[in-house]
Amino acid sequence: MNVTLIALDEPTDKFALALTKNAFPGAPIRVGKQRKEQPLLQAIVVNNKISNVCPGGYGGDGGVADAELVCAAVAKHLNLPSGSFVLPSSTGVIGWRLPFQAVIDAVPSVLKTMQSTSILPAAAGIITTDRYPKIRAASIGGGKIVGIAKGAGMIEPNLATMLVYLLTDLAVPREVLRQWLPEVVGGSFNCISVDSDQSTSDTVVLLSSGKVPVDEADYPAIKESLISLARKLAEDIVRNGEGTNHVIELKVSHAPSLAIARALGRQVINSPLLKCAIAGNDPNVGRLAAAVGSYVGNQGLESDLRLEKCRLLMGGKIVFKGGAFELDPEKERYLVEHMEAAQLEPGPLTMASGAHIEFPPHERNVMLEVDLGEEGGEELTLFGSDLTYAYVTENADYRS
Amino acid sequence: MNVTLIALDEPTDKFALALTKNAFPGAPIRVGKQRKEQPLLQAIVVNNKISNVCPGGYGGDGGVADAELVCAAVAKHLNLPSGSFVLPSSTGVIGWRLPFQAVIDAVPSVLKTMQSTSILPAAAGIITTDRYPKIRAASIGGGKIVGIAKGAGMIEPNLATMLVYLLTDLAVPREVLRQWLPEVVGGSFNCISVDSDQSTSDTVVLLSSGKVPVDEADYPAIKESLISLARKLAEDIVRNGEGTNHVIELKVSHAPSLAIARALGRQVINSPLLKCAIAGNDPNVGRLAAAVGSYVGNQGLESDLRLEKCRLLMGGKIVFKGGAFELDPEKERYLVEHMEAAQLEPGPLTMASGAHIEFPPHERNVMLEVDLGEEGGEELTLFGSDLTYAYVTENADYRS
Repeated sequence: MNVTLIALDEPTDKFALALTKNAFPGAPIRVGKQRKEQPLLQAIVVNNKISNVCPGGYGGDGGVADAELVCAAVAKHLNLPSGSFVLPSSTGVIGWRLPFQAVIDAVPSVLKTMQSTSILPAAAGIITTDRYPKIRAASIGGGKIVGIAKGAGMIEPNLATMLVYLLTDLAVPREVLRQWLPEVVGGSFNCISVDSDQSTSDTVVLLSSGKVPVDEADYPAIKESLISLARKLAEDIVRNGEGTNHVIELKVSHAPSLAIARALGRQVINSPLLKCAIAGNDPNVGRLAAAVGSYVGNQGLESDLRLEKCRLLMGGKIVFKGGAFELDPEKERYLVEHMEAAQLEPGPLTMASGAHIEFPPHERNVMLEVDLGEEGGEELTLFGSDLTYAYVTENADYRS
Repeated sequence: MNVTLIALDEPTDKFALALTKNAFPGAPIRVGKQRKEQPLLQAIVVNNKISNVCPGGYGGDGGVADAELVCAAVAKHLNLPSGSFVLPSSTGVIGWRLPFQAVIDAVPSVLKTMQSTSILPAAAGIITTDRYPKIRAASIGGGKIVGIAKGAGMIEPNLATMLVYLLTDLAVPREVLRQWLPEVVGGSFNCISVDSDQSTSDTVVLLSSGKVPVDEADYPAIKESLISLARKLAEDIVRNGEGTNHVIELKVSHAPSLAIARALGRQVINSPLLKCAIAGNDPNVGRLAAAVGSYVGNQGLESDLRLEKCRLLMGGKIVFKGGAFELDPEKERYLVEHMEAAQLEPGPLTMASGAHIEFPPHERNVMLEVDLGEEGGEELTLFGSDLTYAYVTENADYRS
């Protein structure tokens, strides 16, 4: 088990949290809902291996007391007024009790390794079976934003959770951060799906030390930078998804609303048939059209959408227009090559630490577009994963 | 390509149709929508290999004229007044033009093989890569009901379609059949999901020759028989699904409404993580709870459902209650054995015709239950498939 600490020099009121909507949330999520309303926060403690979900009963204790014990221990070692200054995060097996004493015992040695030069140890510490740590950074408005992320669906059998920590020194006020976060999440982490399953522990934290004063005129640029960083981090999560060998980048354009763009896009990137086709480098336009038609028909949206205006594109080429497929052998060959070029086939690399971690060899995606033809409509880009043997292996083959 | 004919001796007004809601429907679906409003129908012509979907443009001709040419040829050979007495059905590759002349040329030889002793040739004729023909029959009210079905999601790459024909000699009036069909479909074919993808050609036909007079007092029993037959046929479709090695039978009980039972049930049986776990004979209760919690949380139903009353069962055993898991090594062993016993591992058998067709060795399912604890609430049973290598193979590996 890794225990990872993220701590500020001073407590801050500048933080925002986005937590899973799963109705069976983990204990850290329930603690997080309380922390969210508090005036101050100073540290985050993360453990992997055990997610502290539902061990002791819903509505009852359910691991909340265990999480609070860990927070209190961290607070004591950091000389904080109380455990409520510490946000707990857990990822790992669902249903087991958190070995809180082991976590507490680990805190002193974790404290000794704390430093302020690199986020890499934290990014590496929070992962479970992720293939590599995920870090994105930006410089903006005289300060910095750095984000780290863990997870891609439920990476290991029974292991839940996407954990994301967005850290900055920019003194953006609490209420502005809280206004931004839903938009940041909506445009990034809520646009990805590895396997359509929502975890019991998904968490996004936005935390500012407030050390760099900010001009209000820079807000739009900072927000843009934050969204852009979060999008790349979200894309990284998919790229590192369970068995992912192709990242699907789907643009839904000219949609009547953002809600329709999102729901239709999710249906498309979650279509098992389309995901399998992409795994096999098969430009299967029929499955793309079927997924779009299925959503539109089931939602009774035919009257809102003029489907005769709908265009489908793969690799930038129109493959469906005016209700008919536009394919020829040359275009198919081009599309197969486009998909082959987006295959990840990650190669092994060795970290400076000696740990064996594989990085993705490139950031090319399989480009899809569903253009709904609504003049001046909404646009949303979503990221999904193909469906491979490796996904089934990771999730079915570990015990029998 | 197989061409299959189903014909009555006389035209009938006693028929009902349920067609896909997919907004990019195949040409036979569009023709079917017209046929549905007609007074009379006498025959059904089915071809496999090419589904006649979207070859010529949405809103334009789109293969409707080709389908009508086939119907007209069948009508001529059967001495029917017009092609409108014939319902067309197609299943196969999406996007290709129907080779209507080949279908028409096949009609005379198909006519020569027509007989009224067995439905098996028709059940075998309409399948594509199904592993075996699917037939269910019942005797009720002095008459008979027989149903045949093709398909399980999109069985072959690019092959769409579930086709179901429910035939009877019971003279149940047209308006009664039409009242029943949505209920029959709602309790059977709308309770199954192999891969959550809806085809462009899904069709259920209920057709009566009207030869056996029916006492109105027998209506409830006939309807029940019809529903029960349709449920078994629906279960057969899942059992024969793409790569299916376990059928998941999920009962959602004590639900606040049938709509919630259906939507929650679909979320559970479509969860890729749960499907993979079942493929690996892993009684993964965490994934079951996560799928339930995900649906409830995302739909904002926490206030309608008292989750502390929710119970989860596997193989008839309680595995989650009062928000906490109830597992021990003995129960886990029992559940692993329950899942192993439900594995299909189909063995090859030889048909009387000499065709090599594999039948399922048993009808045991992996039994799951989500009991939402609502006193006197609604109940619905759904059928799903596990997720295996074979599914990925069938849908990804045929070209690269």
